[in-house]
Amino acid sequence: MKFKKVLIANRGEIAVRIIRACSELGIQSVAVYSEADRESLHVRLADEAYCIGPTASKDSYLNFTNMMSVATLTECDAVHPGYGFLSENADFAEICESCNIAFIGPSADAISKMGDKAVAKLTMREADVPVIPGSDGLIEDADEAIRVADEIGYPVIIKATAGGGGKGIRIAEDRDDLIKQITTAQQEAQKAFGNAGVYLEKYLTGMKHVEIQIMADKHGNAVHLFERDCSVQRRRQKLVEEAPCPILTEQQRAAMGQAAVRAALAVDYAGAGTLEFLLGQDGSFYFMEMNTRIQVEHPVTEMITSVDLIKEMISVAEGNPLSFKQEDLRINGWSIECRINAENPDKNFMPSPGKIDFYLAPGGLGVRVDSGAYPGYVISPHYDSMIAKLIVWGPTREEAIIRMRRALSEFAIDGIHTTIPFHLKLLAHPKFQKGDFDIKFLEEHDLNAGH
Amino acid sequence: MKFKKVLIANRGEIAVRIIRACSELGIQSVAVYSEADRESLHVRLADEAYCIGPTASKDSYLNFTNMMSVATLTECDAVHPGYGFLSENADFAEICESCNIAFIGPSADAISKMGDKAVAKLTMREADVPVIPGSDGLIEDADEAIRVADEIGYPVIIKATAGGGGKGIRIAEDRDDLIKQITTAQQEAQKAFGNAGVYLEKYLTGMKHVEIQIMADKHGNAVHLFERDCSVQRRRQKLVEEAPCPILTEQQRAAMGQAAVRAALAVDYAGAGTLEFLLGQDGSFYFMEMNTRIQVEHPVTEMITSVDLIKEMISVAEGNPLSFKQEDLRINGWSIECRINAENPDKNFMPSPGKIDFYLAPGGLGVRVDSGAYPGYVISPHYDSMIAKLIVWGPTREEAIIRMRRALSEFAIDGIHTTIPFHLKLLAHPKFQKGDFDIKFLEEHDLNAGH
Repeated sequence: MKFKKVLIANRGEIAVRIIRACSELGIQSVAVYSEADRESLHVRLADEAYCIGPTASKDSYLNFTNMMSVATLTECDAVHPGYGFLSENADFAEICESCNIAFIGPSADAISKMGDKAVAKLTMREADVPVIPGSDGLIEDADEAIRVADEIGYPVIIKATAGGGGKGIRIAEDRDDLIKQITTAQQEAQKAFGNAGVYLEKYLTGMKHVEIQIMADKHGNAVHLFERDCSVQRRRQKLVEEAPCPILTEQQRAAMGQAAVRAALAVDYAGAGTLEFLLGQDGSFYFMEMNTRIQVEHPVTEMITSVDLIKEMISVAEGNPLSFKQEDLRINGWSIECRINAENPDKNFMPSPGKIDFYLAPGGLGVRVDSGAYPGYVISPHYDSMIAKLIVWGPTREEAIIRMRRALSEFAIDGIHTTIPFHLKLLAHPKFQKGDFDIKFLEEHDLNAGH
Repeated sequence: MKFKKVLIANRGEIAVRIIRACSELGIQSVAVYSEADRESLHVRLADEAYCIGPTASKDSYLNFTNMMSVATLTECDAVHPGYGFLSENADFAEICESCNIAFIGPSADAISKMGDKAVAKLTMREADVPVIPGSDGLIEDADEAIRVADEIGYPVIIKATAGGGGKGIRIAEDRDDLIKQITTAQQEAQKAFGNAGVYLEKYLTGMKHVEIQIMADKHGNAVHLFERDCSVQRRRQKLVEEAPCPILTEQQRAAMGQAAVRAALAVDYAGAGTLEFLLGQDGSFYFMEMNTRIQVEHPVTEMITSVDLIKEMISVAEGNPLSFKQEDLRINGWSIECRINAENPDKNFMPSPGKIDFYLAPGGLGVRVDSGAYPGYVISPHYDSMIAKLIVWGPTREEAIIRMRRALSEFAIDGIHTTIPFHLKLLAHPKFQKGDFDIKFLEEHDLNAGH
């Protein structure tokens, strides 16, 4: 079937991104917005827009009932959830399907399997995808934790099975530390996620965060679209992403890609998904988690493959086979994305909401801007602080870095603090320029102190 | 040698384009501006900026003395002339070289040879480049004109040898008409260009304007970067350009490309240049003129080849060999450019200068904007009316058109009239969508009347 109208169950730049794809596909778009987002760009650009509740996300962007009311009343064929909010909510995916509205994403079953991190890990191990050494599923009590930790060696990570994206994690340095933390971890998990289950993993060091973009259809086809290096993180939040990864060999790339495709096939995956791995300097890699949605950093993959991932997701949800095969895909050049946030990097990245007095995005060859911002737009303190994604392409990594520095220098956003000065410092850092950084890079290097 | 500092002898978007290239090459940029352009974006983005005179172009952007004073006082190694203004002025190129400042473009000799249209035509014929049937060089008087016209057949065009870019042209339908016009044409040419020389050409109909981008170095290497179709013209001014050309076969492409390379080699060309041809529906093509500079529409070639033409021009002027060979170049996908002008398409494209109250350029995948505009910028009535070049890329022509329509719809420019509504109508026209248009398309189709 061909969709006629799609509800975009999100806000900000990703809502704008999806509206653009719908527009180019000749599909009507229906935007939703909270009371705080009345003046947002996604509201202006969509064909229709409806308020779905007050400012608090739980009352608006997370409100199943209101979301489904708009979808049914406007006669949408499908819902695109974007990232965050309802994008990895299996119940929401199920409700959509039961209302005969396509959920543009994988099945509720695939979301559930990957959402439970301990189940995901077992599933991956069965699919012959390397996983981080650790417990076989959930840990019952301190005794079992100690037995597993002694076997795999300290330090270890205690992870909430219902966590993800850097949340619900504790590190234990030794046996005493583990005994001290295990019960607290379970209690915290119960409180934060409504699920007390935790599991143990070896704490690996010197690792890069490298993820594989996959795309699968409902006819049993799955391909990978190479990797992204997202090791530049602050408190487990990604700040800069690039594709390809500067240290990966062709052989390692193929091994990781094939593992990711096996993972997708193992859960009958359909749509866009990402397998997140830790990559060691020796090329060893370990499954961390699967994101069963489009990701913030998807544009860098689009830039090096010329594939429009959002359009392909929609096409797959319509029931079409993938529009390309593995052998059609090639890496062309290099792409980097900087997340421009309304935060003050000189004050510990404190949020800096407020009105954008002047706004002029950079342009020219190899520069892409995905943003919901405009001159006069007011950044709300109620949602995430991302203002824009600045994405560049260059024939080589060196040229992509140079172009990003040029584009960052041009980007004019007045009235609020932004992370642009942080990015300029990062991109000038010799270790970043050499590709020599792991997920601890920002913890271990004070960019303000010079090199 | 490696340039340290480059003077940009231009304004508007092309000055911004060149500043961006310099920045990415680690070259300092020196901007110049007239009194009217004090608040221009190129002034803000350059490393240094100097006022070179009053508003009138002849006193500022065409003022050799002031231009060279800035170049020498700021110790520039080179001058980039952009397009228009001094870009095809052989005297200026010569003065630069005599001051030991590199002119980023071809030699004064190559500019002269191609600037005199009758000489250019003879040179091309000698290089085995097909030319439009017509007089061998200049026409002395009406008798000679009649003899030639009888031979090639009516209608004929009378062209001023010092003209170009659609200026200095008259069409004679028959012998009487020719007799009536020939003396006037000579007098007009004397008045407009200081050179009374005119020549005759057969007036061909149903032709497309298809041009070949070439790039040559100072070591005898020359390549072509395929073609651009610039047939959408209003009063001989290009409005929309695309690459590749929708009707060209691989064989015709190769033939035109090879002819363009022969042309470049024939005049010892160095740098970026464009061979403009008329292309018939049978694939026959005829040399019109060569533009010995970068062109407004160069970005569509950059989008399909991934070559940065401005950086390559600079590299060639530094004395480097071309960074690519003919066999390295491939066409990837499709690109279209719309010139967004401050004009009212509903009032016969009357200029619409004034203040831009709100400005938000479109973004996202496959969208490039080259512009000197920003929120609050005042479009001067004294220069050309182009506000921005909107360039899109898509895997196919159809997808590029769809993306352009999406991007045009998003482009927000308040406070003045723009040609955006015109472009939206053009891109919706079935003949444009089929690629079925020649240089008379806009004369013969009233876009406001529907199809």
